Amino acid sequence: MKNAIVLVSGGLDSATVAAIAKSQGFEVHALSFDYGQRHKIELDAARRVVASLGIRHHAVTAIDLRQFGGSALTADIVVPKDRDLSSAHDIPVTYVPARNTIFLSFALAYAEVVGAEDVFIGVNALDYSGYPDCRPEFIAAFETLANLATKAGVEGKQHLKIHAPLMQLDKAAIIRRGTELGVDYALTLSCYDPQPPNIACGTCDSCQLRAKGFAEAGIPDPTIYRPTA
Amino acid sequence: MKNAIVLVSGGLDSATVAAIAKSQGFEVHALSFDYGQRHKIELDAARRVVASLGIRHHAVTAIDLRQFGGSALTADIVVPKDRDLSSAHDIPVTYVPARNTIFLSFALAYAEVVGAEDVFIGVNALDYSGYPDCRPEFIAAFETLANLATKAGVEGKQHLKIHAPLMQLDKAAIIRRGTELGVDYALTLSCYDPQPPNIACGTCDSCQLRAKGFAEAGIPDPTIYRPTA
Repeated sequence: MKNAIVLVSGGLDSATVAAIAKSQGFEVHALSFDYGQRHKIELDAARRVVASLGIRHHAVTAIDLRQFGGSALTADIVVPKDRDLSSAHDIPVTYVPARNTIFLSFALAYAEVVGAEDVFIGVNALDYSGYPDCRPEFIAAFETLANLATKAGVEGKQHLKIHAPLMQLDKAAIIRRGTELGVDYALTLSCYDPQPPNIACGTCDSCQLRAKGFAEAGIPDPTIYRPTA
Repeated sequence: MKNAIVLVSGGLDSATVAAIAKSQGFEVHALSFDYGQRHKIELDAARRVVASLGIRHHAVTAIDLRQFGGSALTADIVVPKDRDLSSAHDIPVTYVPARNTIFLSFALAYAEVVGAEDVFIGVNALDYSGYPDCRPEFIAAFETLANLATKAGVEGKQHLKIHAPLMQLDKAAIIRRGTELGVDYALTLSCYDPQPPNIACGTCDSCQLRAKGFAEAGIPDPTIYRPTA
């Protein structure tokens, strides 16, 4: 079996990607980050997802992005609620500087050490929050970089491919695909501002996109939402 | 003053780069990594270099590359000694998987948060150890990536430039340049296998390149070497 690295956050998208990588026959090495995120309990969701898919390798890497801050997820900036996403075109304050660049860099190290040529990431360019490091041109540039960066690549032993299988899917299509593959979305957590153990706010951008996805897919939403006042 | 991020390891090259960035009028934000390196005492050298250059900002970021291993610097692999570098063309075991990709990714986060457009790194393609992530094509690919990765870049507020001012210099030329700029190389530590507080082995690849550089530059070598048996 070929090894693959899959970035697993604990959210809906990366759970789907992990299931896709497994369905393609890869021996999945999951990689998650304890990066100082406000919604750190997503790591519990990541562990549940990894266990439920029978993935045997899971690295959780600690990095301190609070040291740099600059985001509602890593600094004392309020997570926006009840935004009208249909008219919002700016990059929101939940953007974390260089996050996917950092995550993919660690995935590259992990890939080289376990001899993997395939790295999977759950970014998508449709129902997303406008983050620059979720776009196809970013992923293509990282793949180019990756093939110049490693010893195994230079020696011709490794040709790295960055897979972003959700890139052109909307949230409903992602949910349908994961449901076909048996993903249990009740285990996942998408909310930027959750309460333990697994309670979503229902109003942040990520909750809105998720709820809309289940509704459009016509699949019951298993998310536990915080009661409104 | 314009902010710049400078990667500072504590070695000779990055000390020179920090002095170059200062001489170009940048407000330097130094960035070092506690990454599980065998020669962790290089961080003391980094702090000495930063202080001696009057740099007021210094972030030391902890990341655990021992979690992945795969290098003589981050795993239980012996650091090679007394190699004949004139005939060695392979990438040595001191290569750390994806290290410069990871370091530059964090520099990118730091740059975005402090509004810097300039990132300096002390790689060079002549007197180096054959690492793939020290080559001009790697640096160029990272710069392309960086300009696709950030919010500030996408919004047109930031155009990132990765400076590698040592790229085409040999070690003697680097030492001459730093000496002109007043760098005190006695503060630096290049050795991969040092002893506290600042004693170099004299025989690893890095020590060999450094000693040869001072000899060729005709500048006294201030390095403290371990007595040979």
